[in-house]
Amino acid sequence: MKRLKIKEVLAGGEVGQQVLVKGWVRTKRGSKNVNFIALNDGSTINNLQVVADVEKFGEALLRDINTSAALGITGELVESMGSGQSVELVASEITIYGKSDPEKYPIQPKKHSLEFLRENAHLRFRTATFSAVFRIRHAMAFAIHKYFNDKGFYYLHTPIVTASDAEGAGQMFRVSTLPAIDPPLNEAGEVDYTQDFFGRATNLTVSGQLEGELGATALGEVYTFGPTFRAENSNTTRHLAEFWMIEPEMAFYELKDNMDLAEEFLKYLIKYALENCMDDLKFLSNRLEQEEKNKPQDQRSMELIEKLQFVLENDFVRCTYTEAIEILRNSKPYKKGKFQFPVEWGIDLQSEHERYLVEKHFNKPVILIDYPKDIKAFYMKQNDDGKTVAAMDVLFPQIGEIIGGSERESNYDKLVKRMEEMDVPTDEMWWYLDTRRYGTVPHAGFGLGFERFILFVTGMGNIRDVIAFPRTPKNAEF
Amino acid sequence: MKRLKIKEVLAGGEVGQQVLVKGWVRTKRGSKNVNFIALNDGSTINNLQVVADVEKFGEALLRDINTSAALGITGELVESMGSGQSVELVASEITIYGKSDPEKYPIQPKKHSLEFLRENAHLRFRTATFSAVFRIRHAMAFAIHKYFNDKGFYYLHTPIVTASDAEGAGQMFRVSTLPAIDPPLNEAGEVDYTQDFFGRATNLTVSGQLEGELGATALGEVYTFGPTFRAENSNTTRHLAEFWMIEPEMAFYELKDNMDLAEEFLKYLIKYALENCMDDLKFLSNRLEQEEKNKPQDQRSMELIEKLQFVLENDFVRCTYTEAIEILRNSKPYKKGKFQFPVEWGIDLQSEHERYLVEKHFNKPVILIDYPKDIKAFYMKQNDDGKTVAAMDVLFPQIGEIIGGSERESNYDKLVKRMEEMDVPTDEMWWYLDTRRYGTVPHAGFGLGFERFILFVTGMGNIRDVIAFPRTPKNAEF
Repeated sequence: MKRLKIKEVLAGGEVGQQVLVKGWVRTKRGSKNVNFIALNDGSTINNLQVVADVEKFGEALLRDINTSAALGITGELVESMGSGQSVELVASEITIYGKSDPEKYPIQPKKHSLEFLRENAHLRFRTATFSAVFRIRHAMAFAIHKYFNDKGFYYLHTPIVTASDAEGAGQMFRVSTLPAIDPPLNEAGEVDYTQDFFGRATNLTVSGQLEGELGATALGEVYTFGPTFRAENSNTTRHLAEFWMIEPEMAFYELKDNMDLAEEFLKYLIKYALENCMDDLKFLSNRLEQEEKNKPQDQRSMELIEKLQFVLENDFVRCTYTEAIEILRNSKPYKKGKFQFPVEWGIDLQSEHERYLVEKHFNKPVILIDYPKDIKAFYMKQNDDGKTVAAMDVLFPQIGEIIGGSERESNYDKLVKRMEEMDVPTDEMWWYLDTRRYGTVPHAGFGLGFERFILFVTGMGNIRDVIAFPRTPKNAEF
Repeated sequence: MKRLKIKEVLAGGEVGQQVLVKGWVRTKRGSKNVNFIALNDGSTINNLQVVADVEKFGEALLRDINTSAALGITGELVESMGSGQSVELVASEITIYGKSDPEKYPIQPKKHSLEFLRENAHLRFRTATFSAVFRIRHAMAFAIHKYFNDKGFYYLHTPIVTASDAEGAGQMFRVSTLPAIDPPLNEAGEVDYTQDFFGRATNLTVSGQLEGELGATALGEVYTFGPTFRAENSNTTRHLAEFWMIEPEMAFYELKDNMDLAEEFLKYLIKYALENCMDDLKFLSNRLEQEEKNKPQDQRSMELIEKLQFVLENDFVRCTYTEAIEILRNSKPYKKGKFQFPVEWGIDLQSEHERYLVEKHFNKPVILIDYPKDIKAFYMKQNDDGKTVAAMDVLFPQIGEIIGGSERESNYDKLVKRMEEMDVPTDEMWWYLDTRRYGTVPHAGFGLGFERFILFVTGMGNIRDVIAFPRTPKNAEF
């Protein structure tokens, strides 16, 4: 008999149908005569209730059916009497593939802390919460590829190991095969990287953008979706040393086109989640509601699905940085001294400022543009005012900045001048400058941190809980 | 006016229609009265022929229109008189976004060697050959995600930085933030990695499989698609230090299910290429035919599209390693001493052997199974004969092994014993062994090297030409 996934059985199984299912036990409860086994195979958050007659299977076999045991079960579907599902399965045959000793199995059917589950990240996929998170993560990754493919963008794999250090010197991981003790030195007494594997000093990439621009200025519209790295000693709920980024880059796009794309893209993803992941979202919404009960009323977050619909249904407000500073300085919290950080033209906005703009002032997602050039990267297009650049940050409720991007400086002379001002080595970047030497075009792009986006969609609170095996300071387990 | 992509114009543009296109000049040729500009925007291998009246635009402007200059052109579509396309564009307005000095631009409209283009990898996207390769690479990446998503697999991002060295100690890249000179040492005089960023020695991953198994034994069916690394000093046309792998891993799959999946998967991808990339494939087929003309007749490869259809239309032969050894020892080349490498039970098959089986003996793609355990990894399921494991390699014409996989050993005791025999540290792998301790299941999976597959589909000869910015010994440019 062909095995069916539990998702298929629950969606389309008919009373009287003979089926074979395979999966892991979530819970078992029983009476003298009958055992009820909640079976899950990862295909859905919902368990299939299996009814096993004690006399038929014998107590010895049923004693081995504990949480996380792996079973294959054949039987007949009957109308469900109370499991909340349409059908349940009356077992006629049970195969135990693998037992799970209830005295030793770490994840018992009770509430565990997220910290404990993080230490058991290899098993947390077996919980309802994490299976929901990782199904949604998958759905969002697929939706990203589908969105760009349907629009004629090309997926570009930019390099992970790179010699380019244009963006974050000092916060990068060194990649080397030289001896860790007593590496070869050159005459100046420095490590002789000409003897290293790549013949030069290499690091893990912090962004694929610069290489993305090389692709965009020939293929038109490209995107990256790959791992990026920061060797920052940040032990927060928002930072990972290894995380995945999506970076579209488009030739012939100006700042407005970039904003339009970012808004359309985020709405597409959220719509996709609402259309394809509702069971998991509902579960996570309930989970969040339980968590929030411990918080004072005014600190509780918006209900998860409502929050997603809020983004979907609102036009994103577009506002310049200069206007935003005005708004903030005229705000109640500013006047009452409630902001922790100062507000004046030239500062980098803090999360409290971004959230005020999104959640209190506009009550809509916001795209801030035209930031002071001194707080932004060298490659951003310089505006005519001489003070600002054509940057854009997309700000979301609760999370603040979710996307950062810009139109790129396409003028060779202006770009070189800015690189020199900011001590970016123009000689090492000959290949980047070539795009402005030969057939330069207006172009733009942005970056979306995948895990921060998944935090937003799942309502989880710690970024370590939305990536399978988080890498953070002092942690590279699994 | 809304800009159209050249692909749209060539596919659906109507005579008399006013259009705006933007792109880069591939070639320009002209007479006294009229210039013909071949414009390409990356959306298709085909150029749009633009007709520019010399008197209307003036010689000064037209002089700036050279190979790789970036243009925006408005005009009216007319019936094409000979460019091989249905329509061409009579320009009414031309905007030059960026010039390209023909004295300096490295890639002139003539045949360059692939070596030269590799040194100019930042500009090679602008050539017909490489734009075709990278469009096909995109299409294959998308098809991979679509195939797995449609089948209910979940995409799992397994870690890039890892402390696990179960598979290839000595061939890994070290990842560290410790000082490169005089790192802290422990009492034993070794580097004190407890002071490193992750608090332990870390490397770049060689495979996501082990972590994939953690996902599969809860979510059911998962796949990875991410970068993997080998610090092998191999300067060949088949090796990269950084390459992308696809590794599906499926709970409740036995070896036969694994073979069925691999065959269906490869055929799906090739069918997708034939249905979606025919223009690019035809171009690459012609390119290959030109290249092959210099080779003696008997060394020429199969025509590209024919080769793809060969895979699509044949059932893959399934054959044990032991049978394959028999076949090889009874073969003409063996008897005539034509094989370079020895053939006897226990050897690892060489490319010459694999190609004989596929191209001469069976004349079909081949899946070889049940390899000697001593030439395969510790995690493969041990067969009852005590000598072989449930491994499978998929062999293709020309390229040899394209997929390697196995059913995994699901029995805890057998697995531990094999790990001990092979000096794999069982204590460091506690998390891997937990999958066999708690609810173990038969499961299987395989790995596809993405670049080797792209070599096969594009007919390119050097793996450095199918990844955007290749990383190889002494090379990490761009």
